[in-house]
Amino acid sequence: MSRVYDRVALIGLGLIAGSMSLAIRRAGLAAEVTGYARSAETRATAREIGLCDRICDTAAEAAADADLVVLCVPIGAMGPVAEEIAPHLKPGATVSDVGSVKKAVVEAVAPHLPQGVHFIPAHPLAGTEHSGPRAGFAELFDNRFCLLVPDADTDTDALERLRALWRGMGATVEDMDAEHHDLVLAVTSHAPHLIAYTMVGVADDLRRVTDSEVIRYSAAGFRDFTRIAASDPTMWRDVFLNNKEATLEILGRFTEELFALQRAIRTGDGDLLFDYFTRTRAIRRGIIEAGQDTDAPDFGRVKR
Amino acid sequence: MSRVYDRVALIGLGLIAGSMSLAIRRAGLAAEVTGYARSAETRATAREIGLCDRICDTAAEAAADADLVVLCVPIGAMGPVAEEIAPHLKPGATVSDVGSVKKAVVEAVAPHLPQGVHFIPAHPLAGTEHSGPRAGFAELFDNRFCLLVPDADTDTDALERLRALWRGMGATVEDMDAEHHDLVLAVTSHAPHLIAYTMVGVADDLRRVTDSEVIRYSAAGFRDFTRIAASDPTMWRDVFLNNKEATLEILGRFTEELFALQRAIRTGDGDLLFDYFTRTRAIRRGIIEAGQDTDAPDFGRVKR
Ligand SMILES: NC(=O)c1ccc[n+]([C@@H]2O[C@H](COP(=O)([O-])OP(=O)(O)OC[C@H]3O[C@@H](n4cnc5c(N)ncnc54)[C@H](OP(=O)(O)O)[C@@H]3O)[C@@H](O)[C@H]2O)c1
Ligand SMILES: NC(=O)c1ccc[n+]([C@@H]2O[C@H](COP(=O)([O-])OP(=O)(O)OC[C@H]3O[C@@H](n4cnc5c(N)ncnc54)[C@H](OP(=O)(O)O)[C@@H]3O)[C@@H](O)[C@H]2O)c1
Repeated sequence: MSRVYDRVALIGLGLIAGSMSLAIRRAGLAAEVTGYARSAETRATAREIGLCDRICDTAAEAAADADLVVLCVPIGAMGPVAEEIAPHLKPGATVSDVGSVKKAVVEAVAPHLPQGVHFIPAHPLAGTEHSGPRAGFAELFDNRFCLLVPDADTDTDALERLRALWRGMGATVEDMDAEHHDLVLAVTSHAPHLIAYTMVGVADDLRRVTDSEVIRYSAAGFRDFTRIAASDPTMWRDVFLNNKEATLEILGRFTEELFALQRAIRTGDGDLLFDYFTRTRAIRRGIIEAGQDTDAPDFGRVKR
Repeated sequence: MSRVYDRVALIGLGLIAGSMSLAIRRAGLAAEVTGYARSAETRATAREIGLCDRICDTAAEAAADADLVVLCVPIGAMGPVAEEIAPHLKPGATVSDVGSVKKAVVEAVAPHLPQGVHFIPAHPLAGTEHSGPRAGFAELFDNRFCLLVPDADTDTDALERLRALWRGMGATVEDMDAEHHDLVLAVTSHAPHLIAYTMVGVADDLRRVTDSEVIRYSAAGFRDFTRIAASDPTMWRDVFLNNKEATLEILGRFTEELFALQRAIRTGDGDLLFDYFTRTRAIRRGIIEAGQDTDAPDFGRVKR
């Protein structure tokens, strides 16, 4: 794979930035990867494990002279971080991000960036419930989608290079507009996460069922919910606060449908339940056919 | 492993019965396993793959002379099947089941069984989203719980033998009363399944997001929901119709909490969200420590 950028700077050194650095190196996509995280502890860890070529003590230093600067911090921190690095950006540089919400990030970041700097938001659809500088791995983006959010004014050359970077990291790149992105993700990720958090919270609350029972007897279903609900609290707080509208719309529809199914249970309408459950099966088949999951049984999961 | 029963009869030949037959053979727990399924097609498949030692054309024939008869059919079919086999049961035989709901099964089955036959309901907490005679595998119950539901009158010897069978199939056996079982399972399995079905249904409904987008961009979260929502419609219809009260109680609490979190999103109460998400993380840790799941990243899952 040929080099795409001379210097890439990663601001924030968690799961996503760490995986990017490892994936960039794997394919030789940049001559140098610099990194910065706000806490001395994270920077020390990143240095210790050699996460980037150079870990800097300020965001300005990491961003200086970089051809691409990627903001890899929680959504709520994107604006302040953009403001901080703005004066240090090289003319012609590209700024991107990896935030799970796009409209709010565009609104928070764009106003800070100087003329002559290209801003192209991005969102890799890949993650785990782990976080921090030790969570990353080079394969995270392999065969996953990365959605780019260019607009009509986006420089085609800058866009092409960012595409090449993500492809080089293993991802399939597609374009989407910010508003549609936020709605699609509300359906496929944000609402499911809130629902999983809620269900795990309910279990934890229940006086008549002890915590140890919830843990011991967690079968498929709840066990999957707990994994989802173990995701980073800061990241998810920011996602919900910044994708309010779409998330609330989807949750509203969800509640409506849930009430219809609850009514069917209460009245004993087995046909409605059966038909509903048959319909949802088809979607699963589509996902397996699209290669987004495997059909292997995962009772207890495969140990590695 | 020593022999526990001379003849075990499995009524219904799907995922659970198939796995039981294979696990019983693996450990040599019975001299003969007979099987029966209502459709000629399932019986033919079971014969073709040698699922049991003998596949019978009637439930009566399979149950005749068996020391243990296990009902492995959907909850709604338990009563009629018990009625059908009752006249053919050997005195001193044990009847058990594997249904995911216990109170309704006890009420449906017990009245049909003759004096001198021991009825000990059971529920192995193990499954996949696959069903039918080809879905079973010998390892399904390994390191999983099997809950037995004896009562004050249960014959200790019969109970000890059933325990030995499940232990021999790899499971950890525990006792629980029927009502508590149904509440615990409503929390850890039934409500999560209904919620997953609902969320997948919402995604399928949404006009502004296409099915193919839902499928392509399904990230962790929704992808797990689709697996849960691919479970057998008949089985789950029967679960909800037969564990109405506990499921509706849990769903009521779930809706309450969901509304509280929705309100926090709407009003921008980030602290409430952050604290809630932090609390749910602890439960996940408990499950991993209890060995009920692994901590391995499963983005895209391991292919086998
Ligand atoms: N995890 C996923 O599944 C996933 C998937 C796709 C996209 N994303 C997006 O990727 C971004 C990063 O997520 P991640 O999973 O990599 O997170 P992470 O592992 O928790 O790392 C976050 C990084 O951001 C820094 N940070 C946190 N708060 C900050 C603040 N207020 N100001 C400056 N820096 C701050 C942290 O620094 P310290 O370590 O010094 O605290 C850390 O280096 C988020 O916007 C998220 O929406 C995540
Ligand atoms: N799957 C799980 O995750 C899981 C876990 C624990 C417990 N369970 C419980 O185990 C039981 C069986 O589940 P499974 O997953 O093994 O199901 P399955 O793979 O769908 O097999 C069900 C079997 O029951 C037979 N059957 C269906 N409807 C019937 C009826 N009305 N009368 C007589 N026989 C009928 C079917 O016969 P045909 O093939 O001839 O139609 C088939 O052999 C259920 O009570 C379920 O609650 C399931």
